[in-house]
Amino acid sequence: MTDNAVAADTAVSAEQAEREQDLVDRVVASFDQAPDARLRYVLQTLVKHAHAFVREVRLTEEEWNAAIRFLTDVGHITTDWRQEFVLLSDVLGISMQTIAVNNEAYKDATEATVFGPFFVNDAPHVELGGDIGGGAPGEPCWVEGSVRDTEGNPIPHARIEVWEADDEGLYDVQHGDGQVYGRAHLFSDENGEYRFWALTPTPYPIPNDGPVGKLLDTVGRTPYRASHLHFMVAAEGYRTLVTHIFVRGDERLATDSVFGVKESLIKDFIRHDGTAPTPDGRVIEGTWSDVRFDIVLAPQPTRATPA
Amino acid sequence: MTDNAVAADTAVSAEQAEREQDLVDRVVASFDQAPDARLRYVLQTLVKHAHAFVREVRLTEEEWNAAIRFLTDVGHITTDWRQEFVLLSDVLGISMQTIAVNNEAYKDATEATVFGPFFVNDAPHVELGGDIGGGAPGEPCWVEGSVRDTEGNPIPHARIEVWEADDEGLYDVQHGDGQVYGRAHLFSDENGEYRFWALTPTPYPIPNDGPVGKLLDTVGRTPYRASHLHFMVAAEGYRTLVTHIFVRGDERLATDSVFGVKESLIKDFIRHDGTAPTPDGRVIEGTWSDVRFDIVLAPQPTRATPA
Ligand SMILES: [Fe+2]
Ligand SMILES: [Fe+2]
Repeated sequence: MTDNAVAADTAVSAEQAEREQDLVDRVVASFDQAPDARLRYVLQTLVKHAHAFVREVRLTEEEWNAAIRFLTDVGHITTDWRQEFVLLSDVLGISMQTIAVNNEAYKDATEATVFGPFFVNDAPHVELGGDIGGGAPGEPCWVEGSVRDTEGNPIPHARIEVWEADDEGLYDVQHGDGQVYGRAHLFSDENGEYRFWALTPTPYPIPNDGPVGKLLDTVGRTPYRASHLHFMVAAEGYRTLVTHIFVRGDERLATDSVFGVKESLIKDFIRHDGTAPTPDGRVIEGTWSDVRFDIVLAPQPTRATPA
Repeated sequence: MTDNAVAADTAVSAEQAEREQDLVDRVVASFDQAPDARLRYVLQTLVKHAHAFVREVRLTEEEWNAAIRFLTDVGHITTDWRQEFVLLSDVLGISMQTIAVNNEAYKDATEATVFGPFFVNDAPHVELGGDIGGGAPGEPCWVEGSVRDTEGNPIPHARIEVWEADDEGLYDVQHGDGQVYGRAHLFSDENGEYRFWALTPTPYPIPNDGPVGKLLDTVGRTPYRASHLHFMVAAEGYRTLVTHIFVRGDERLATDSVFGVKESLIKDFIRHDGTAPTPDGRVIEGTWSDVRFDIVLAPQPTRATPA
């Protein structure tokens, strides 16, 4: 099937085009009296893009029906614990684009990526050099680095939240048994340096037993995320950074199901065997890895968020 | 608040714009292997428009969260009997635009409008000149007209489905008690003419006790539809027409909540008092109205629906 057969025949008559544009204009105008100016602007822009989509693909009534059924299914599987609309936004890259527009490139500040559904408040505190694994199964991984501003000045006492899945690809909260592992918070030292033990990240699929999983399957996409370790770094006067680091060489980097990978966030995880001395003298049977992640925080944005 | 303060500051840096476009490209490419070429095209086009929207309005994370909550609410109120996603599509004009692109202007063929949720199969048959009211309360209305092709030739035996709300704005199916009224089917005669008794249409709100109703309220829009009488007209070899007729002078024509009104579908409903002789000699106490609706069917489309 050629693209010509697939893409809609957009050579509509002038009268038809006028009818379609007139409808767009009327829908946009229907929001003219909305008291909240920002909401008015967002909805009117949404209408323009949604109608442009329907007109460009010449959406069939059958396809419209299929879309309604799909969204209905997404709505019905969604609970307080399972957010299929977030998954949908994720796999269409909309979550990541929202992150992108809210974390604009600023000098060499570390790039942001998706927050994901597995962060929890009040993760345990560990001292510098402590272990965030909490006894979870997996290969030990020494993580160290610095927190600096874009001028290269160290940022002491930055709050660093880290969280990750175990070697079966599950976060503690997915067990539903109240266990806490694979997550902690710590603070950079006087020189802006930090270090801790974690687990070498492993890949895991996003929940794929629902309509979004079915969609990925239908279009030949994998539900797997590339292996990653989550970071959230906050310090007074700086833009809070929500990001991951990824493992160079991971075969899933190119097909991360939520488009979270950025080249600058791919790090060298060096694997060692148990005979190699660890940075803090810890004795490890089997292999372990280490990685360095130097974090650069942007200043708090000065231009206001659009009201 | 000026438009400048509301609209997002789109003067992003070249590096930022490149990051955002790169993400769009990666998401589009993720669908490259979809086996169904039409689905691939539709989803890739959807991604382009969705990302263009997020980038244009510089969607905030708070707004993204609000959108997820809104869609979750829409999903949760939706049942087999209440379709809030359809309502959402309706009030954004997306349903009407879908109708528009699937019923392209063809010579002087009668324009289509939204189907609505209240059609039922197997409505009773009435003879020409019969009454579709089924005893429902409301002002009697004599409806007559012709069914012709775009060359002016009569189309005999066209199947005409008609349905409408009672004078309280409710369709029979909204009572849930199995009553059938305000709906029927009939056939045009040898000369393509038809005639029947119905009720003068009255306005009614779309269901407005859910998130879509709340949205309309927030933006200062009415949930009311302009008064209308539904038609579906089918004949072998012709494009099936789904449409309404509206009442000239109805104050709600300009604010129809689903954008179903088209100028060509607004008809003169002439009111008479009970002393005026009716077209078929029926004796009526109080007022009655009459309206003429001449229907023109387009031929069955010859170009294939995009596969
Ligand atoms: Fe994760
Ligand atoms: Fe209706």
